[in-house]
Amino acid sequence: MKKYLKNIGIKANKALSEKIDTKIKNKVLNQFAHLIKKNKLKIILQNKKDINFAKKRNLKENLISRLLLNNYKIHQIIKSINNIAKLKDPTDVVLSKWKRPNGLIIKRVTIPLGVIGIIYESRPNVTSDVSSLCFKSGNCVILRGGSEAYFTNKLLANLFRKALKDNKINKNRVQFIEDKNRKIVDLILSKMKKYIDVIIPRGGKKLVKKVQNLSSVPIIGHLEGICHTYIDKYADINLAKKIVNNAKLRNTSICGATETILIHEKSLKKFVNPILKNLEKNNCTIYADKKIKNIFKGKSKKAKEKDWSTEYLSANVSVKSVKNVNQAIEHINKYGTMHTDAIITKNKKNAKTFLKNVKSAIAIHNSSTQFADGGEFGFGGEVGISTNKLPPRGPVGLNQLVSYKYEVLGKGQIRK
Amino acid sequence: MKKYLKNIGIKANKALSEKIDTKIKNKVLNQFAHLIKKNKLKIILQNKKDINFAKKRNLKENLISRLLLNNYKIHQIIKSINNIAKLKDPTDVVLSKWKRPNGLIIKRVTIPLGVIGIIYESRPNVTSDVSSLCFKSGNCVILRGGSEAYFTNKLLANLFRKALKDNKINKNRVQFIEDKNRKIVDLILSKMKKYIDVIIPRGGKKLVKKVQNLSSVPIIGHLEGICHTYIDKYADINLAKKIVNNAKLRNTSICGATETILIHEKSLKKFVNPILKNLEKNNCTIYADKKIKNIFKGKSKKAKEKDWSTEYLSANVSVKSVKNVNQAIEHINKYGTMHTDAIITKNKKNAKTFLKNVKSAIAIHNSSTQFADGGEFGFGGEVGISTNKLPPRGPVGLNQLVSYKYEVLGKGQIRK
Repeated sequence: MKKYLKNIGIKANKALSEKIDTKIKNKVLNQFAHLIKKNKLKIILQNKKDINFAKKRNLKENLISRLLLNNYKIHQIIKSINNIAKLKDPTDVVLSKWKRPNGLIIKRVTIPLGVIGIIYESRPNVTSDVSSLCFKSGNCVILRGGSEAYFTNKLLANLFRKALKDNKINKNRVQFIEDKNRKIVDLILSKMKKYIDVIIPRGGKKLVKKVQNLSSVPIIGHLEGICHTYIDKYADINLAKKIVNNAKLRNTSICGATETILIHEKSLKKFVNPILKNLEKNNCTIYADKKIKNIFKGKSKKAKEKDWSTEYLSANVSVKSVKNVNQAIEHINKYGTMHTDAIITKNKKNAKTFLKNVKSAIAIHNSSTQFADGGEFGFGGEVGISTNKLPPRGPVGLNQLVSYKYEVLGKGQIRK
Repeated sequence: MKKYLKNIGIKANKALSEKIDTKIKNKVLNQFAHLIKKNKLKIILQNKKDINFAKKRNLKENLISRLLLNNYKIHQIIKSINNIAKLKDPTDVVLSKWKRPNGLIIKRVTIPLGVIGIIYESRPNVTSDVSSLCFKSGNCVILRGGSEAYFTNKLLANLFRKALKDNKINKNRVQFIEDKNRKIVDLILSKMKKYIDVIIPRGGKKLVKKVQNLSSVPIIGHLEGICHTYIDKYADINLAKKIVNNAKLRNTSICGATETILIHEKSLKKFVNPILKNLEKNNCTIYADKKIKNIFKGKSKKAKEKDWSTEYLSANVSVKSVKNVNQAIEHINKYGTMHTDAIITKNKKNAKTFLKNVKSAIAIHNSSTQFADGGEFGFGGEVGISTNKLPPRGPVGLNQLVSYKYEVLGKGQIRK
């Protein structure tokens, strides 16, 4: 098994040494999209195999629905690949250039990150989306998908490999690990440092935690998105109502969904009932601290300490009163996960204090935390959101899948 | 011991939450420089204590000379701090800003990395240089210096803390670990992930290797600098002679010193004797492959396989013939350490092929690998050179000690 993986690593690095023109990259992506269209029935067939296995294994309904590929979802996949083909090539871009007093010219130029290992679960569109983004940014990709989507993932990866071959590019730019043994993930994390430059985990908390704990390779990603929306004393009530509803309930299962609402204690009477009633009406369960519970005329449960650090990913929300913007920031920096946090206020000074002082990768003023998304940022998709302190941070799209090198141009200068 | 460290971690993070104006930062740095000047005799006294201990422990002469602080070296330290005070504050800089079709304005803004742990050996100037760079870039620093420089480091760190206190800034921006127990380093690496954002190791290979193997915290740095200079068929002989001599011998103990010279096999007769004779004359020992040994009229030893992956850090050099620029690149990417590599050629195409394809953080055309240095890049000093694939890469100066966050400005937009 170790030899099998090592071999994949060697092949990826060999493929990486070949540089590919932007035009060829785009041809490969368009061909990949074309092959998906052409093989739609085959894909649906393989997907059915996965679904049947999943049903036999009694997987939960929401997991099965994530697994499912239908005409619409395949259309979305194709659209996404075509979009990536249209984006500007992020490699070999001169980020800055300067001349030293001794005449040396120094350029900082973008380069691919290298070999990227993707460890993911369920959704088969990760196979095509993430591979396409990694490929366009000049990287090689090693895919380790979840066993529940094995047949679908394998076919999609093979179609990408065919598109590469059709364009005379080393097909090991994209490799799919076919060995289903669970120990493979442990080995990737502990033994492949020499061959893999970055690991991107995509999946549930259990998977991401495992990757974070075991990986000797740098990781891009996040464990949890415990996002907050703080309603300041100077918030517009209608704006707050609209934004909070969207931030919490638009899609409760994404990482940018708000999990905790903080409200300025001087404005509880003004905000609590209109805002929480609105959530309640939309079937949201409310976990409130004592002060808010006393004021709220609807139903609520008592928030416990652990509610402040719970990523519900469902129609639940914790609500807390805070003294002021500083206490809101303090709460967020203590319980948050440096993902995405928002302030609603008309007060510019408070907004600035908030934006500058929350540790979050994304800090938002007067808008919804659900905007935490590469597509919404205009990145043309994303491989995920990073809560690392070091770059890349926030949504990781095409332009974030690169690093840089220095090119130094001399005329015989020597160092004194 | 664990509690002691945890406490340091908590204090660092508390200090970090306070934002400091650029003006105050510079006042602190100037005050630090002033205190060093004022306490010069005290510093020299503490340094003598370290030197005496070192002599008793029979430390090598070159280690003792690194340890030594005299008038000149203290003057250099003061100069370096004053220089850092003059550099532009790298935090809160808007790297890019754009507007989305829905009106959201997104800004990418630089922020400090957070709490930086420095694990270093010998040279006491690391204490002042690195602390000053980390402080100016808004970070907090936890210093773990080598026991051999204990008294000098401690006094320098305390002078920085006094400068902070004099300016009413939390003195835990800079903390020095006084516990000399060797296990402290292991604990920092394995248990402080929650409190430390980045570790920067500065020291010998043994120390860096340990840090790389044990750290659960991201590392900025490099293990070895196996740097190459490739002399192409189209190299100017005088330029090559001058550059190679500088690259190898200017200072053999720095990481940017060339360790292997590669020569185009069609030009061996032209280059081998003039270039290697010149090195020999300057007391450099030459380890040559068979072809070169046959042509070279001076003394040389036979290069073994392990010579290609040896960082001599002394007046030794390995020399190899290669078929062409591609084989030079292949050799570098196999044996090199992604640090700094140079090509000498008048041929623009070969230069481009080389610059684009060596994996090195710094790729140089017609100049010396010894320019691999933050100061020489115009960064106003450096904390080290990073050979990571992810940013920051290459020399890590003030502008590389920051990360970024996204600030999103809305007017009530919600996500569809």
